Amino acid sequence: MKQITSIQNPYIKSLVQLQEKAKARKQSGNFLMEGKREIAIAVKGGYEIETLLFLPEICSEAEARQIAPTPALIEINKEVYQKLAYRDTTEGVLAVAKTKSMQLSDLKLSENPLILVAEAPEKPGNIGALLRTADAANLDAVIIANPKSDLYNPNIVRSSVGCLFTNQIATGTTSEIITFLKERNISFYCATLQNSTTYHTQDYTTPTALVVGTEATGLTEEWRTAATQNIIIPMQGEIDSMNVSVAAAILIFEAKRQRGF
Amino acid sequence: MKQITSIQNPYIKSLVQLQEKAKARKQSGNFLMEGKREIAIAVKGGYEIETLLFLPEICSEAEARQIAPTPALIEINKEVYQKLAYRDTTEGVLAVAKTKSMQLSDLKLSENPLILVAEAPEKPGNIGALLRTADAANLDAVIIANPKSDLYNPNIVRSSVGCLFTNQIATGTTSEIITFLKERNISFYCATLQNSTTYHTQDYTTPTALVVGTEATGLTEEWRTAATQNIIIPMQGEIDSMNVSVAAAILIFEAKRQRGF
Repeated sequence: MKQITSIQNPYIKSLVQLQEKAKARKQSGNFLMEGKREIAIAVKGGYEIETLLFLPEICSEAEARQIAPTPALIEINKEVYQKLAYRDTTEGVLAVAKTKSMQLSDLKLSENPLILVAEAPEKPGNIGALLRTADAANLDAVIIANPKSDLYNPNIVRSSVGCLFTNQIATGTTSEIITFLKERNISFYCATLQNSTTYHTQDYTTPTALVVGTEATGLTEEWRTAATQNIIIPMQGEIDSMNVSVAAAILIFEAKRQRGF
Repeated sequence: MKQITSIQNPYIKSLVQLQEKAKARKQSGNFLMEGKREIAIAVKGGYEIETLLFLPEICSEAEARQIAPTPALIEINKEVYQKLAYRDTTEGVLAVAKTKSMQLSDLKLSENPLILVAEAPEKPGNIGALLRTADAANLDAVIIANPKSDLYNPNIVRSSVGCLFTNQIATGTTSEIITFLKERNISFYCATLQNSTTYHTQDYTTPTALVVGTEATGLTEEWRTAATQNIIIPMQGEIDSMNVSVAAAILIFEAKRQRGF
């Protein structure tokens, strides 16, 4: 059993890079995650676990072996664990997993898909929240347009509570995604503040994508011009502001309601 | 013009206490907030601003005077500002404001009220998100059952982006709130996972309260037993988890839809 007990160890340093740098994730094709449940969900979602690191005081070797099939196992000590783990109170196990390609062409859609598109969401926590809602609604796919980070950013991994691994996800430029939707005759409804109709008057029972922009600037012109229909959630308060994951959830569940769940 | 240039100043120390300690807020009846827009919203919402502290490099005395009527003005320096401000890049103005009572008996409801009740929300950020959605939907009131903190916790103030001041808010024990709702013939629908019916089958066009619990443990037995009807948002994904502010928004906007906005 390999053991690592120093945070100066080059391999441990490389794992810190995986957490901190998108470039390191891209070059290695790996990312770091933690938590028994999350790792098990990733395995179920077809992710390949390359290495499991466990802290024997919290997670035994036998327990670690049950989480994922045949990865390399490394025993670490508390100092190394605390260097790598986000929540040092938790489950004593970390995984180095292989990233997946997130190509539009990889998506497998049902005959009557319901898709969420989010353009350039600013905050990792918002992407995590969108993925949780998408999982709850069992959407066909979540597509991120012009992402500001790769989706294996540790804050996204964490805030998705495993939903990064249960959803079909793709990224692309806005142009690529519009082409993708049009080629498949998927109507797309863009949440905007201008020239729009109230969201609940539209029919989402045929192939549909719901498109949301950032809280700060909304959707770009390209989306608004190409939209099947621009839609708005009526804002009747004093503060013209709604969290993007909340807005997306309202739209998604209106579509689900129309489709009879 | 009074000036304070030391973070050792006893008044500044007392303001730090206001940020950090619910007890200090309770004893003084004051809380600390920042941002021109937020302070202006608080003033509009009937909050009394006792003192404005401004950093002249960012916010001039004249600008500060325009934000709120006749408070005491104190000029501070950068060191003091950074000690007190959450976002040190921002607007150079802080306010000491008087807290409001949040009694159930103070609420002024319309003839056909729509109310959100949240039981013991864990995270300040979740309360802020609930208040944003409540503002957007122009709810009659938000009621927090068994709150874990006073609502002038700086993380709630911040995450509500002013919606703490635009909503009617009350707190109370679960028993007090159930009595309040029953006395007024307000039907209340409790979001639960057990013994419940799908949320969109219910009629929310008469006086209605929507009740949500915590993400970890849901609503207490007391709510579930007393409910007009327990309701559920169908969860069709692999991860049985939805952010409480997302769940609340789905329920609130279904009620708004039924009421024709």
